[in-house]
Amino acid sequence: MSLILYQLDGRDGYRFSPFSWRTRLAVAHKGLEADLRDVKFSDRSPIAASGQERVPVLVDGDTWISDSWAIAEYLEDKFPEAPSLFGGESGRALARFVNSWADAVFHAGIFGQVARDLLDHVHADDVDFFRQSREARVGMTLEEFQAGRDAKLKDFQYSLMPVRLTVRKQAFLGGEAPNYADYIVFGGFQWMRCASPHKVLDADDPINAWFDRVAALYDGLGANAAGY
Amino acid sequence: MSLILYQLDGRDGYRFSPFSWRTRLAVAHKGLEADLRDVKFSDRSPIAASGQERVPVLVDGDTWISDSWAIAEYLEDKFPEAPSLFGGESGRALARFVNSWADAVFHAGIFGQVARDLLDHVHADDVDFFRQSREARVGMTLEEFQAGRDAKLKDFQYSLMPVRLTVRKQAFLGGEAPNYADYIVFGGFQWMRCASPHKVLDADDPINAWFDRVAALYDGLGANAAGY
Repeated sequence: MSLILYQLDGRDGYRFSPFSWRTRLAVAHKGLEADLRDVKFSDRSPIAASGQERVPVLVDGDTWISDSWAIAEYLEDKFPEAPSLFGGESGRALARFVNSWADAVFHAGIFGQVARDLLDHVHADDVDFFRQSREARVGMTLEEFQAGRDAKLKDFQYSLMPVRLTVRKQAFLGGEAPNYADYIVFGGFQWMRCASPHKVLDADDPINAWFDRVAALYDGLGANAAGY
Repeated sequence: MSLILYQLDGRDGYRFSPFSWRTRLAVAHKGLEADLRDVKFSDRSPIAASGQERVPVLVDGDTWISDSWAIAEYLEDKFPEAPSLFGGESGRALARFVNSWADAVFHAGIFGQVARDLLDHVHADDVDFFRQSREARVGMTLEEFQAGRDAKLKDFQYSLMPVRLTVRKQAFLGGEAPNYADYIVFGGFQWMRCASPHKVLDADDPINAWFDRVAALYDGLGANAAGY
């Protein structure tokens, strides 16, 4: 049985999608491998069978699963003997809190920091789509939006306190070993690393060492990706 | 064996300390009872034996434990046969994320909403201490600080998205049943409810129903407390 994972395409080797990263690490955590296939914003036809238009999409035989959270739950329940992504039902329940924090708060902050830089890393066919859809969302040009990032940086750094305070006390968000909560948050930092040279963390921020620990997992799956 | 729990005193029946609420619910979750004793900001002598000045402090025989997180871990490890506060090590690890979010982000937002109202609910002996220490922290009078709350309300409501998105999907932060993560976040909302008539949630916010579920636990321990 082989898995197929559709992820967001990018320019050259850059693959920055935070949601795709969550799933790539979840697959590796389970000791599985997936055949990676790229999908462009401008052509969603490869994932038409999923009945929706967003990546990541995991295909397991005849089963198509979309939404990174749903994919994590699928992997956990389908491969119960493999290392657990959640560490039990309480871990799963609270990973949803982390997932919600990342989707609503963390990612919004990230977009404020690297919105324009992302444009340089989307697939050439997707540049117009990305600019138009994102500029409609923020109500200004991506250049104008990103120009405000220095003024937002302190608040963004402060918003990372839940991560910072946690990894001051333990090696991973999941505890002594990484779990899906780590991959959720890693996805956001990897999104920045794979699309921008802009540094958002102070050099002495303990989040740096945590990021490096997660990036090193699975033979450096995250660390070896093209980025800055 | 009987436990003693030192909590923050307040005016009349009002007991608003969010950290004390975390611990009161944690004790109840374990099926335990504690003899409650009040401590004023202006007289910390009852907890001198704890070697620090903050409540809650739990006393179990000759053992004094301070800091609400440390107390939760103590209860979990000392009473392993009682219902689990964390639901395993992953649950404990991620509860720390929730704890960090509450301490750094949630509580700061709450203080922006009810800082001046709190003054009306601290013990009469503590009014001067509370005003002076908190005004030094925010750099203006409590009246001036709270006057800005309407302008901050939308951002504060948005900051609650991790809670809101989670309880849209499950009955409690801990999943189908409540755990310590629920008590952490409940403590913050109870802090507001027990010190201010100000409403921060829209009527249709799903957080309301979740709050009511937690408040109803243990014979209405939270719901029966004096508040608004």
